[in-house]
Amino acid sequence: MLRIITQQADVRAELQRICDRTHDEQVHHKEATVREVLQAVKRQGDKAVLHYTAEFDHQTLNPGELRVSGSELDTAYQQVSKDLLEAIRLASRLIEAFHRQRVPKSWVHFGDDDVVLGKRYTPVDRAGLYIPGGRAAYPSTVLMNAIPARVANVPRVVIVTPPGAHKAINPAVLVAAQEAGVQEIYRVGGAQAIAALAYGTETIPKVNVITGPGNIYVTLAKKLVYGTVGIDSLAGPSEVLIIADETANPVHVAADLLAQAEHDPMAAAILLTTDTSLAKNVQVAVERQLIDHPRRIDTEKAIAHYGLIVVVESLEAAAQFSNEFAPEHLELEVEDPWALIQHIRHAGAIFLGHSTPEAVGDYLAGPNHTLPTSGAAHYASALGVETFLKHSSIIQYSETALQKVAGAIDVLATAEGLPSHADSVRRRVQEDE
Amino acid sequence: MLRIITQQADVRAELQRICDRTHDEQVHHKEATVREVLQAVKRQGDKAVLHYTAEFDHQTLNPGELRVSGSELDTAYQQVSKDLLEAIRLASRLIEAFHRQRVPKSWVHFGDDDVVLGKRYTPVDRAGLYIPGGRAAYPSTVLMNAIPARVANVPRVVIVTPPGAHKAINPAVLVAAQEAGVQEIYRVGGAQAIAALAYGTETIPKVNVITGPGNIYVTLAKKLVYGTVGIDSLAGPSEVLIIADETANPVHVAADLLAQAEHDPMAAAILLTTDTSLAKNVQVAVERQLIDHPRRIDTEKAIAHYGLIVVVESLEAAAQFSNEFAPEHLELEVEDPWALIQHIRHAGAIFLGHSTPEAVGDYLAGPNHTLPTSGAAHYASALGVETFLKHSSIIQYSETALQKVAGAIDVLATAEGLPSHADSVRRRVQEDE
Repeated sequence: MLRIITQQADVRAELQRICDRTHDEQVHHKEATVREVLQAVKRQGDKAVLHYTAEFDHQTLNPGELRVSGSELDTAYQQVSKDLLEAIRLASRLIEAFHRQRVPKSWVHFGDDDVVLGKRYTPVDRAGLYIPGGRAAYPSTVLMNAIPARVANVPRVVIVTPPGAHKAINPAVLVAAQEAGVQEIYRVGGAQAIAALAYGTETIPKVNVITGPGNIYVTLAKKLVYGTVGIDSLAGPSEVLIIADETANPVHVAADLLAQAEHDPMAAAILLTTDTSLAKNVQVAVERQLIDHPRRIDTEKAIAHYGLIVVVESLEAAAQFSNEFAPEHLELEVEDPWALIQHIRHAGAIFLGHSTPEAVGDYLAGPNHTLPTSGAAHYASALGVETFLKHSSIIQYSETALQKVAGAIDVLATAEGLPSHADSVRRRVQEDE
Repeated sequence: MLRIITQQADVRAELQRICDRTHDEQVHHKEATVREVLQAVKRQGDKAVLHYTAEFDHQTLNPGELRVSGSELDTAYQQVSKDLLEAIRLASRLIEAFHRQRVPKSWVHFGDDDVVLGKRYTPVDRAGLYIPGGRAAYPSTVLMNAIPARVANVPRVVIVTPPGAHKAINPAVLVAAQEAGVQEIYRVGGAQAIAALAYGTETIPKVNVITGPGNIYVTLAKKLVYGTVGIDSLAGPSEVLIIADETANPVHVAADLLAQAEHDPMAAAILLTTDTSLAKNVQVAVERQLIDHPRRIDTEKAIAHYGLIVVVESLEAAAQFSNEFAPEHLELEVEDPWALIQHIRHAGAIFLGHSTPEAVGDYLAGPNHTLPTSGAAHYASALGVETFLKHSSIIQYSETALQKVAGAIDVLATAEGLPSHADSVRRRVQEDE
């Protein structure tokens, strides 16, 4: 049963408990395993990759089988329905269109005395995308990671994904990869896949940036290799926070809460509402929609542990609680969402109005569905084209310009005790040396 | 003596050795200490902060002394020279002008069927800046961290910096902080400062983003708290790579190499040149400029261990080596730097021509001097206003628009085994429910 509490209860403590749901003490223990895997792959390359694939994924591969072959890529198209292929193509088009908006461009500014300053954007050389396997093998995840990399013009994009039974990869994943322009796919998952991408092996190339969601081992491995490579973020279980007033439809709100809860027993689904009867009606609708839910057990677990309805005094109070929680997904199912959004400061993605269920953003509206979780929206943003770009500062001074600032640099360098800094300028501006 | 090798030697191995100079095995050992400090501060707050300040910085403070007082802030202005104050103000103006260019702006795109998509940029609520103490107490570091935070409109910016002898903080640091608009300064350094910012204590506020350079303990602490808060980067020792042809002045090139080497015995200073006589003349000039260098011992160490001159066959070959190294600072001291920059893919900052020593960028040209080191320029960029901003995706669909994509979402959600995702859309578009 989805609990209802009121603003008089300790809402902050409950929201904090839900936000902190991943910070368990087992993490430190798992880190030892992950460190071992990273070290082994760094030292032994493919041999260690194959060893851990046998141990953790129970698939015995030889090195030649690591890369998904051209014929498997072709065959995948015959294994997905025409409807699914068309849906993947529609999603690809809309995601690409959104990601092509406002891509950072190199620029220079010409100042006085022939000073030129600017930023030059360039893509990383190689990107590695982690795509989970098993129950969570989602073609949408492929599109949301591969399309931004392609829009960034990354010259080489590779995918790693764990093999399922009989070494197979989900054909919808293979089709989505090809539709997004990625042909280089390796059958490896877990921390061993992250290690292979970070250090390189005989078969799998070392990359510069690793993106994509995974289980706790994958996330720990990404954190440990950060600094050797760039990463997108440390993804935790998914979450939605819905702010609704009396204009919201309780059946729709219930479906949106369940659409989050069905992901994972650790998923969080929170409703903040000003309307007591909406609260009760959503509670009833959730129960009803759970009855014949194909993922009932896990979904009920999420609802029981990390589901919550809070009856709040005002929409402003709801916005305040939401800002403290900083949800991955925020739905504003209220009469005037554009008024309410003014009060929102921290959220991964904001879904406005009654016809914008989170699912439309998960699949195809265009914005990225890889979003900061567990409060990270306080400082982080969606994955994007920027994840695969970096910039170099551009500085060009002239003799005249250098002459004008030489005195100031001399004073600063002397104050900082860095004589050669001062010297490198002084020698250039002195008339004879 | 600065070594000269030729392209026939194993240049790649040498550059790799220099790039990897921080990846020492002692790190794992220090991590245990850092974890202990983080846990203690998380649990005991100020008490642990004061304990470690006594232990590591040898300064015994009471909680009331943690924050630098208003009278200390005032007094600092009397302790810096008028010249230094003016230089700090000039640098502030130029740094702010550069950082105000191309600040990301929120945007929405109005599509067909009343679809609205966009990105909304907001600053983090609170930022914490780490400013090193002791020999490396640099007012320029304050400006380069605080000004982007202020341009991002972060509501609360705090500085932490370790106390020196008699609990004092460098007055130039205090003046630079105030010139950049930061009044809230805490007398704490090391891993205990990072812990205080990540978790909050009775006195020091928890922040959302921590930036700024520090020693290995600070860097390890930043890596460990990443995920609880955002961080700018994991800074290593500084480095410069200079590409020079026969038009370069060897005395200037030598001064630029020493300006890097004088930072730290771990600093790297590399010259790639097509001109054998330039190579020799730079070698001689470095020796000569070292003779009465005030930091001779440490500077010589850096030159001996991580200094290198490579005579290359062509500027294109130099660019290739440089791209593999991905230097923090890259100087193009060649006749036509704008032709050569076309071949450059990875560098933190690029200094063009003969009148642009790195020092001009270190202090006041405008671009940030906090740059990716140790090869991180392969995927990372300078600290900037973006470090203190994040964005929320904006999605608004209409009933009509949702109707048009409902079928595709249904197919995708069904393929991914997420029935409530499909349901949340289907229930909204069915005529009666």
